Amino acid sequence: MTTVKVSRLDRLEVLAKAKGLDGFLFTSPSSIKCFSGYYYNFETGPSPFHVLPAALIVFPFELKSLLVADNEQDKLAGLLPDVQVSYYSSYVYENALRFTEDFSSQLLKIIDANGFENARIGIEQNTMPYGLYKTLREHSIGIKLIDITNELNFLKAVKDEDEINNIRKASHLADMGQAAVLKYAKEGITELELFSKLRLDMETVAGARVPMMTDLVSGQSTASGGGNPTNKIIKKNELILCDLTPCLNGYWGDSCNTMALGKPSTEQKRIFNLVKEALEIGVNSIRPGVQAKEVDLAMRKHLEAEGDFAHHGGHGVGTVYHEEPRITPYNTIVLQPSMVIALEPAVYKNDFGIRLEHLMLVTKDGCEVLTKFDHRFEQS
Amino acid sequence: MTTVKVSRLDRLEVLAKAKGLDGFLFTSPSSIKCFSGYYYNFETGPSPFHVLPAALIVFPFELKSLLVADNEQDKLAGLLPDVQVSYYSSYVYENALRFTEDFSSQLLKIIDANGFENARIGIEQNTMPYGLYKTLREHSIGIKLIDITNELNFLKAVKDEDEINNIRKASHLADMGQAAVLKYAKEGITELELFSKLRLDMETVAGARVPMMTDLVSGQSTASGGGNPTNKIIKKNELILCDLTPCLNGYWGDSCNTMALGKPSTEQKRIFNLVKEALEIGVNSIRPGVQAKEVDLAMRKHLEAEGDFAHHGGHGVGTVYHEEPRITPYNTIVLQPSMVIALEPAVYKNDFGIRLEHLMLVTKDGCEVLTKFDHRFEQS
Repeated sequence: MTTVKVSRLDRLEVLAKAKGLDGFLFTSPSSIKCFSGYYYNFETGPSPFHVLPAALIVFPFELKSLLVADNEQDKLAGLLPDVQVSYYSSYVYENALRFTEDFSSQLLKIIDANGFENARIGIEQNTMPYGLYKTLREHSIGIKLIDITNELNFLKAVKDEDEINNIRKASHLADMGQAAVLKYAKEGITELELFSKLRLDMETVAGARVPMMTDLVSGQSTASGGGNPTNKIIKKNELILCDLTPCLNGYWGDSCNTMALGKPSTEQKRIFNLVKEALEIGVNSIRPGVQAKEVDLAMRKHLEAEGDFAHHGGHGVGTVYHEEPRITPYNTIVLQPSMVIALEPAVYKNDFGIRLEHLMLVTKDGCEVLTKFDHRFEQS
Repeated sequence: MTTVKVSRLDRLEVLAKAKGLDGFLFTSPSSIKCFSGYYYNFETGPSPFHVLPAALIVFPFELKSLLVADNEQDKLAGLLPDVQVSYYSSYVYENALRFTEDFSSQLLKIIDANGFENARIGIEQNTMPYGLYKTLREHSIGIKLIDITNELNFLKAVKDEDEINNIRKASHLADMGQAAVLKYAKEGITELELFSKLRLDMETVAGARVPMMTDLVSGQSTASGGGNPTNKIIKKNELILCDLTPCLNGYWGDSCNTMALGKPSTEQKRIFNLVKEALEIGVNSIRPGVQAKEVDLAMRKHLEAEGDFAHHGGHGVGTVYHEEPRITPYNTIVLQPSMVIALEPAVYKNDFGIRLEHLMLVTKDGCEVLTKFDHRFEQS
């Protein structure tokens, strides 16, 4: 028996039929990356020269038009096949800025070539600007906008090969960062100094700045599970919790280790081993057909004698760092091949906390661990 | 004669009267910081658990209500007086996410306490989500939404004391970064390694991660004026161009220096001195009553024999890194005391480029330079 792989674009067409949609207008960075390949670097915040970095029009299905700011041309290397690109004027210095007007006018040109009149268009209501709605409303008689944010969240949970390759690369960066923590952690340096060293190792592998979400805390702060690095000096026999979530080319990786600098207590060793067992239980429970909540509860149960860790057991990872399938006590979503899932069981005691995380690809009969580092509690 | 200082909130009320507005609904990070003090850290991109990090309702004028995601409570340290805070539910793991519904429902509670019916509300059309518009439209009979994005851009150009203090701190960070470049630049290290060192110095001064826009390029790449640091190795006698734009507590600093590693050519020295003169001409031309374009053209004229540098001569700095007053050949905006302006004249030749930048506060009879570092071309 052979199975035909259904791509994310196939699923988008199925969604359109199910909801009676004639097309889509995407405005979230996640959907634009997912369906066009264009990736906006958010690390320095919103640009003062953009309405949105881009909008993606899929209408009708054979046509994908990416409208992108003209100072983003160097970010189109990862564009998917069959995406037509138009530009709107962003930064100018000879005249007053006119990006809002030009964005609308370029968008209407694309629409006029196709016609949104009386069309039902799937949109993302949290990221679609009111100004864009006004433009559409004034121009396209009878247009109906249908919010499909929730449907997209589930549609994106299953990944195509190109997406999995991107996540593999981001996972490799996380591996480099975790290796760096074990290598560089030493008594007397600050959390920010340690962060600087691991970030340089990761950025050198990437050859560029790497946006990343990071928990990097030591000592007492591990008890609350995370936080950004500070000038706190790392002391002998303290634990270091490091959760690294780097973004590479629009796809995220994820990882967490907790290590002891020097000699951990017997109790800390016991908890580390218990959390490691919980993670193994989670990994071993992942396979197609299992519900997300079964994975969560299997890990949670193994740790329940130590108090509930009070956050998700894990989450999907892709163009968003926390997405479906959410691995939580309530989620009945059924795991499928090509979903990508991070599991991060933890125990938080009064004076220390331990969290361990790996990233997994659901395969046809189990899962492949994408993060390749070992969870190690001691440096040597 | 005494002059009464008119605050940004006073100017907001003047704007409301001029446009016949009954109140405001702010959705941009810039306006929310400016009028409430709440600052969202954008460095890791949009949260999957937020509609917006926050919305700010100013209606009527004695009431400022900040609706903020409940996982942002630790970011309210800089809140302005008289801001009332409400929360909407963001991250949960025991149940499905409901932040979109809860954002709407909390917003309507605030509105019901005051009543938007038949009101004219000033909004920001590029950052106001369509979903939020829908909620308002369904709930508030006769409401009129008036886009005031452009008016706000000019309103924010004049800074209050608390804002200037924030910009002073961000400028100090930029000074630390520029000192670090001169200190750490050496033959054989990569641009990313140099970046790592200056960033650590800056983050250590801040005691926290610092979002920053950075050009850090060496050698031939200085000719195109900028770019992010890469694995390129910095070689003997190359120029290093470093433009550092850090964000601290929601306000930006800005600075640029270009240095030679080793021995610059006579031509490079000549150009460095010429650009330095242009910057001094710009600084000396800043005073109340002067038009922005006069400052731009004074600098541009001094450099015209070397070819136009083809970007703005400078820009305002505040809650946005490039804002009004834009220092450009077209801009007739008149400079006023308490505006904050970066000037960045440059010369780009075929094989090297030099840009120098300082940040200035317009005073009653000239300006005060807020960045305190010296533009130095050679290390010693």
